[in-house]
Amino acid sequence: MARVVVDAMGGDNAPTAVVRGAVEAIREYGTEVLLVGSRPRLEEELRRFGGQPSGLELVPAEEVISPAEPPVAAVRQKKDSSLVVGLKLVKEGRGEAFVSAGSTGALLAGSLFLLGRIEGIDRPALGTIFPTGRGQGYLLLDAGANTTVRPENLLQYALMGSLYAQYALGIDHPKVGLLNVGTEKNKGTELHRTAYQLLAKSGLNFVGNVEARDLPEGKVDVIVSDGFVGNVVLKLTEGTMLSLFSLLREEMNRTWRDRLGAFLLLPAFRRLKKRIDYAEYGGAPFLGVDGLVIKCHGSSDHRAIKNGIKVAQELVRAGMIQRIKQGISELEVGEEIDQNKTGGDSRGRGRFARKSLN
Amino acid sequence: MARVVVDAMGGDNAPTAVVRGAVEAIREYGTEVLLVGSRPRLEEELRRFGGQPSGLELVPAEEVISPAEPPVAAVRQKKDSSLVVGLKLVKEGRGEAFVSAGSTGALLAGSLFLLGRIEGIDRPALGTIFPTGRGQGYLLLDAGANTTVRPENLLQYALMGSLYAQYALGIDHPKVGLLNVGTEKNKGTELHRTAYQLLAKSGLNFVGNVEARDLPEGKVDVIVSDGFVGNVVLKLTEGTMLSLFSLLREEMNRTWRDRLGAFLLLPAFRRLKKRIDYAEYGGAPFLGVDGLVIKCHGSSDHRAIKNGIKVAQELVRAGMIQRIKQGISELEVGEEIDQNKTGGDSRGRGRFARKSLN
Repeated sequence: MARVVVDAMGGDNAPTAVVRGAVEAIREYGTEVLLVGSRPRLEEELRRFGGQPSGLELVPAEEVISPAEPPVAAVRQKKDSSLVVGLKLVKEGRGEAFVSAGSTGALLAGSLFLLGRIEGIDRPALGTIFPTGRGQGYLLLDAGANTTVRPENLLQYALMGSLYAQYALGIDHPKVGLLNVGTEKNKGTELHRTAYQLLAKSGLNFVGNVEARDLPEGKVDVIVSDGFVGNVVLKLTEGTMLSLFSLLREEMNRTWRDRLGAFLLLPAFRRLKKRIDYAEYGGAPFLGVDGLVIKCHGSSDHRAIKNGIKVAQELVRAGMIQRIKQGISELEVGEEIDQNKTGGDSRGRGRFARKSLN
Repeated sequence: MARVVVDAMGGDNAPTAVVRGAVEAIREYGTEVLLVGSRPRLEEELRRFGGQPSGLELVPAEEVISPAEPPVAAVRQKKDSSLVVGLKLVKEGRGEAFVSAGSTGALLAGSLFLLGRIEGIDRPALGTIFPTGRGQGYLLLDAGANTTVRPENLLQYALMGSLYAQYALGIDHPKVGLLNVGTEKNKGTELHRTAYQLLAKSGLNFVGNVEARDLPEGKVDVIVSDGFVGNVVLKLTEGTMLSLFSLLREEMNRTWRDRLGAFLLLPAFRRLKKRIDYAEYGGAPFLGVDGLVIKCHGSSDHRAIKNGIKVAQELVRAGMIQRIKQGISELEVGEEIDQNKTGGDSRGRGRFARKSLN
């Protein structure tokens, strides 16, 4: 049974939605939850959802970090915040994963400070799952943790994304693509051309460059990109869908005929919404830190929180951190073999990446 | 009356759609068109659309450049291609603008070779107009001409985009934004932070950083970005919309109730499609070359071609090239004043940009 630490005070709908999501996750998935936040507030919320279930432990934390605060300073100063207290529980081994819908910046900074990086991963990445027509969506890394990256960072993203798709999403031999402006291998900037070469010899199921147009179709399971472009993809997908639905709503409300049609299509729209709803996908893993961290959307409702906890539990069961550590060491072994051929010595962690850059 | 040169052989539906679009533009807008392509093919097409109208001149060119060809080599070697012959007509002053739905790469390369850059513009940019819920869409530069840029390139894009929005789209004081991963002025990479400062003191109606989420709402009239990110925005918008419509089509066809609702909503969907249809927006201007060049989408139908010709005509009437030349010189004057304050000498073209980079 996984023990998941949940930031009860993070997100627009905290603590109500978080408490409800946690209680439902305990009931449905049998998760053990350490719920971190203001004790009186949490006790009050718990009374609304049938009292404190077994499997739920309250951990008091009286401060809250808001998304408006400068992340690094907030994490340093607010030692009694639900975010910092929660991450410490994971660091100390009292919990096996951390779930928060709070400030992304503070969660990234706090995770780096308190949990540290996995050796061999230079830059952790925020993964996000996007809905697709076919299949179960695609995983994008990096959705915004690092705006500027080097080619070997993209290789590490591909490795982590591939393992996540395999063990958390259950996809065999996940297809990995490099987000680019064309499919030919010389497309894009120097970053992309070098990353392409690293990916091609990585042993991952690399299918080449992928254009943004082909992402919503589900052409790949994992797409890697620097965090600037990844963040643009995240926000533009959201904005385009919202805008299209808003236009559709306008157009479906002009005549009696429109309104009747819209009424008849209510179930179809509900099904569509479910297919593309972010809440159905359980949060965004922060991959590469030495601990399991799941970021839920700031506007998460109880279902999104529940799904985030479910994903955390699956990651615990899959031993994701250990898988990444092993994957990274195997990437290095691959490079060692190459080096041995030319008589070089490549002992030492993380050297794979640095050498490949020259 | 504007004299517009049209590449009859470019695009997936050439020459049929191009010839029809040209004939309709002549009839509707009174444009004079120089139609460049294989004479027998064009004469055959013209017979289908009521013969050769007055205002239309055929200019023979027997070669065609396909999008699969390496652009630079194609432009150098195929001197009798419709693209090269057409651009030469503009260079020689026989036509005032060039419209093509052919290879983007070849059009960019050919425009640079044959027309050259406007002095003071280091990198020409491909502009594209995107549909928005409110207003008449937003103009993105650069949609893919240059994947790597410097801050002063983004400033030049902003100037050209602003002038285009003003004179071709009729927007007074167009709002200009910098595409970024957050709205705070220190967001993004070094490129964005420096560009932000240049834009803030440019005298343009700069509204700051804009997140991709807010683009489809029409928060700004002009958004500037490097061509890598811009190209991702272009293709992701297209892919997301297509994917959503395809999902919607599936969901609206499951039960008799769905199908009846979908039938009733046909007029609403048609109106929606019209609002977001690229064909209603007339092509993408290639701004910064010393001549008017409009790129239409490769899959353009006759309406898209007709609209591209209409936009070209508006650009001719507005004297767009002259406006850009004047705008660039005024940006330089602005910098000269700053320089004079500190006793510096800033004569010389294009120096504004270079100095600002240090």
